[in-house]
Amino acid sequence: MNSGPNERSAPPIRILDVIRKKRDGLELSRAEIDALVLGYTNGEVADYQASAWLMAALIRGLSGAETAALTDSMLRSGTVLDLSAIPKKKVDKHSTGGIGDKTSLILAPVVAAGGLAVPMVSGRGLGHTGGTLDKLESIPGFNVNLSASQFQSVLQKCGCAMIGQTQEIAPADKKLYALRDVTGTVESPSLICASIMSKKLAEGIDALVLDVKTGSGAFMKSEEDAAHLAGLMVETGQRMGKQVVALITGMDEPLGQCVGNALEVAECIDVLNDRGPEDLRQLCMELAGWMFLLGGAVASIEQGRALARQMIKSGKALERFREMVVLQGGDASVLDNPDRLPQAQHKMEVASPKAGYVTAIQCEQMGTACVLLGGGRERKEDTIDHAVGYVVHKKVSDRVVAGEPLCTLHYNSESRAARARELILESYQIGDAPVAVTKPLVRKVIRA
Amino acid sequence: MNSGPNERSAPPIRILDVIRKKRDGLELSRAEIDALVLGYTNGEVADYQASAWLMAALIRGLSGAETAALTDSMLRSGTVLDLSAIPKKKVDKHSTGGIGDKTSLILAPVVAAGGLAVPMVSGRGLGHTGGTLDKLESIPGFNVNLSASQFQSVLQKCGCAMIGQTQEIAPADKKLYALRDVTGTVESPSLICASIMSKKLAEGIDALVLDVKTGSGAFMKSEEDAAHLAGLMVETGQRMGKQVVALITGMDEPLGQCVGNALEVAECIDVLNDRGPEDLRQLCMELAGWMFLLGGAVASIEQGRALARQMIKSGKALERFREMVVLQGGDASVLDNPDRLPQAQHKMEVASPKAGYVTAIQCEQMGTACVLLGGGRERKEDTIDHAVGYVVHKKVSDRVVAGEPLCTLHYNSESRAARARELILESYQIGDAPVAVTKPLVRKVIRA
Repeated sequence: MNSGPNERSAPPIRILDVIRKKRDGLELSRAEIDALVLGYTNGEVADYQASAWLMAALIRGLSGAETAALTDSMLRSGTVLDLSAIPKKKVDKHSTGGIGDKTSLILAPVVAAGGLAVPMVSGRGLGHTGGTLDKLESIPGFNVNLSASQFQSVLQKCGCAMIGQTQEIAPADKKLYALRDVTGTVESPSLICASIMSKKLAEGIDALVLDVKTGSGAFMKSEEDAAHLAGLMVETGQRMGKQVVALITGMDEPLGQCVGNALEVAECIDVLNDRGPEDLRQLCMELAGWMFLLGGAVASIEQGRALARQMIKSGKALERFREMVVLQGGDASVLDNPDRLPQAQHKMEVASPKAGYVTAIQCEQMGTACVLLGGGRERKEDTIDHAVGYVVHKKVSDRVVAGEPLCTLHYNSESRAARARELILESYQIGDAPVAVTKPLVRKVIRA
Repeated sequence: MNSGPNERSAPPIRILDVIRKKRDGLELSRAEIDALVLGYTNGEVADYQASAWLMAALIRGLSGAETAALTDSMLRSGTVLDLSAIPKKKVDKHSTGGIGDKTSLILAPVVAAGGLAVPMVSGRGLGHTGGTLDKLESIPGFNVNLSASQFQSVLQKCGCAMIGQTQEIAPADKKLYALRDVTGTVESPSLICASIMSKKLAEGIDALVLDVKTGSGAFMKSEEDAAHLAGLMVETGQRMGKQVVALITGMDEPLGQCVGNALEVAECIDVLNDRGPEDLRQLCMELAGWMFLLGGAVASIEQGRALARQMIKSGKALERFREMVVLQGGDASVLDNPDRLPQAQHKMEVASPKAGYVTAIQCEQMGTACVLLGGGRERKEDTIDHAVGYVVHKKVSDRVVAGEPLCTLHYNSESRAARARELILESYQIGDAPVAVTKPLVRKVIRA
């Protein structure tokens, strides 16, 4: 073939040109994004170059094609779990994080009991939100650090397994996420989307249900921002050939009643015993319903919800949870006796300063209160106290009498409890007139 | 004093908040800019944080107040030269860089001869533009690395001295500039302004004349961009209590005839001998005129120009240059015999491929041609060949016959010469109809 002046082979991509192009708001090619992501992962691109690019990407934004290319590049920076030995459809759920958001521990066994496989790779709490791994580690002996083959073995035996991100899963994301955290480049929908989706798709799943939180306790405070992120993730999933649905759900108050690792595990056990707070139960049924639907176990969302309820009522979900706990080295006796979970030394009621109605809860502050008690991390290297947290007695629209407890703190340090108490009192807005909760828990469902 | 709720002492500034604030387009306070600049200089702020901030600053822009605060903070990251022992007014000139831009070597002795002190701290060439230090080092023995006290001594004896940036001068700029160079954050008027002004004001000068280039060989291609940068620098100078004027000057073709370090020194000697190309002579008279005016040596720009011409005609400027060369360890015999400057082994004429008129010269490519010959640096660690370069015979509006030389290359490597020749031929646009040069060399004068 004759090589004319416009047919010269492509010159090598210079990282400086990639940075400049995004800085100037231009769309990057697949090859340019690969040069950045893979170059950063293997150390050819310096931290300071990656952070300049991240800032440019955050401010200028990334297109749908760029976001999908970034996701795929981050995914391919590591290995994708090969779960082909497991014939079932593999389905997972991801939440953007909230206060008291503990649905994973309920969904994994419910959906496994319903016939699908749930290979769940979860994260730790950072900032004001909790993390699934921290909750699981409240169960004495529970091991979240399984090898890929151990993970697969647990999954094969009981239909669900829950571990942390391994070195092999999306190492580019691990490195980029750590950099974003210290360079003010966390708050980009496209970067968030690529981070979530690259990790989740590395699980080798067929379908994914996204729980995108919105409200005062969510990362995305406004419903518009949440819907934008959800749309990006659904689009990215579709571009990558996966079944993805996103539910925009409210996070204007803690989900359920319990906040704090061991307390939340106890609440999950409650729900698996067909008890527990209505909002948490309802959200789990919605998410499980969609997982069943996307995984092909049912033909409609209504059937999905019904199957989820049935798995709880029959006790099958609880049995799956028990099996998984045993297989992952945990003490399954906590399921029968949740008092064997770590217990805080002290309890203290946070009393309402006045009578009236709870009109709003500053929910992010509620999350910070749990961190202050020692139940979360301010920095990655912090250790956490699984026993501490609080139980919420009054939620939005509830009537309250002066002196009546809003919450009960579970704590191990007086000074920490005093600070948490102050923050919780600040979080509660108590007005004279009753307010009605008009918004449903699930605000919107976004599909491709 | 009673400390009310709004009078709490300011909390320590977190660098992450400074990055986020600029990311979101908000104006930073003096203290926040100090936290970034001084924190980066002393190593508390990481490279990857500084580069994220630089990218945010480039995209979002900095206000006049922020730019002045940044300049001052960078200035105060090091020491300001104390030239109070020298009773004369201290004046300097800075150029944003062009091709064949060699005015510093002429201006320093002219203005010194006219009674002012010129403490000049200059840079090296990088990219397509040359650097004053590289030109000076063409003179055998010339030492640009003087200590502060040696610098002051030369200045005291002959009224001018020319050195490189020392460790003490604006170390924040040195560190930030190196970072900008590898993170795609060079092209910000505010960052450029702060970089230039912090270094120049660290010289302890009273007044500064800025030569802001515009055109195809300039950093700022458009006159609007050049005027914007000039306005920022003049405003910043004014905020810092200095006399500053900016001349927007054309850089659509090389200045003078010679490009390349030793060749340019020879051309400067020519001008100091009252010979040399008209455009270079004219620009030097304009710049020297303003330096005299701002330094209080004359009462008008016309008087300034006249004084400059007189310093050349009388031979006084040449004598000052000779004194400075001797004081800085250089071989002054090159002034009488420029052939003793480094000479390239070979010469080659670049012949015009056709007859017509030079309608335009792609001037940045002309600069790159000199770099290709070995006369400039592509990377900081590159060494340069002082002897190589080229002499321009045809400039814009000149008539040219087919085969007539456009330039004469001075080179030491056949392969380098071939590449430079190709680039020069590409740079010249030769049309059939004559074009008139309608724009004056000095396009605009910007004062506070």
